[in-house]
Amino acid sequence: MKLLEERIARDGRVIGTEILKVDSFLNHQIDVQLLDEIGKELYRLFKDKQITKVITIEASGIAIACAAARVFGVPVVFAKKARSLNIGKDTYTAKVHSFTYDSDYDITMSQSYLSADDTVLIVDDFLANGAALRGLLSICEQAGAKVGGIGICIEKGFQPGGDEMRAKGLPLESLAIIESMSEEGITFRKQ
Amino acid sequence: MKLLEERIARDGRVIGTEILKVDSFLNHQIDVQLLDEIGKELYRLFKDKQITKVITIEASGIAIACAAARVFGVPVVFAKKARSLNIGKDTYTAKVHSFTYDSDYDITMSQSYLSADDTVLIVDDFLANGAALRGLLSICEQAGAKVGGIGICIEKGFQPGGDEMRAKGLPLESLAIIESMSEEGITFRKQ
Repeated sequence: MKLLEERIARDGRVIGTEILKVDSFLNHQIDVQLLDEIGKELYRLFKDKQITKVITIEASGIAIACAAARVFGVPVVFAKKARSLNIGKDTYTAKVHSFTYDSDYDITMSQSYLSADDTVLIVDDFLANGAALRGLLSICEQAGAKVGGIGICIEKGFQPGGDEMRAKGLPLESLAIIESMSEEGITFRKQ
Repeated sequence: MKLLEERIARDGRVIGTEILKVDSFLNHQIDVQLLDEIGKELYRLFKDKQITKVITIEASGIAIACAAARVFGVPVVFAKKARSLNIGKDTYTAKVHSFTYDSDYDITMSQSYLSADDTVLIVDDFLANGAALRGLLSICEQAGAKVGGIGICIEKGFQPGGDEMRAKGLPLESLAIIESMSEEGITFRKQ
């Protein structure tokens, strides 16, 4: 998605060779006009998949999920990162490893909002090692829900998550794939 | 806001006398059409306030903030609930007491995205004791930003936060105010 690549090139900040900060427009401050374009692009990519729910993980996936869901005309369900006292007992759960914090956390989703009748579009802001995505795929499997599509804003192509998902035949589309990056610049994979 | 009151009455679930679950449409599963209407209503209430940013706290405020921000044509900035390794050092911070978990947590916001040039609309899903809102007000004060409005989806009118804010002269509008509730039903405050 050219608009997103241009925005990453202009406003993204690379720290070392691993960290890309896009917090001026995607996951701390949010440019809602850009989000609308991301929502339209995800619809263009997955409009034939009979999507019934858009799912993601709190917190930075929520804005992207809402932007997509309003174009699809379906609800969002977001997985929560810790068991809330108010979430109830009937939940799907999966363990996710955070490479940022080097620790594990649980994600949970109420069984009321995802079932074998659903075909989901999974969205997230980043895909690197794929840990969060594997957690969401596990929740879909527990629910018996079909994965109609996986839409990622920014894939770190130099980390293994994306290529592993493609090798498994999962319907993954990343709107921008970073082949390499340094403080001198960012190179995108041609798609 | 009649549409929201009707939805709460239909799909909200009261547990005991304190807990109102709206996770089927507002803060776990999200009805994005309802969000759009909430965004329009917040615009109607605060459109003359020269709003430059919509701010909230992750996670459940993000969807509401995005729905409002797209109508105002301004960015969202959401406060994060823990210091992220990637957020940088130049942050505003405030301590918030969680009554749900009976513990304190910090909220943080990068100083890059809020300044004395901003007039903000603060939004959130719930207002009960006002702890989260006081944290956001503290961040606005640290930034020197003007509070143009506070827009809450559901105020628990039988808890003190909302009336305290109004007594201070803060520009608070709650789209639905619950006067009392029990498992038998919900009574809304006439507005």
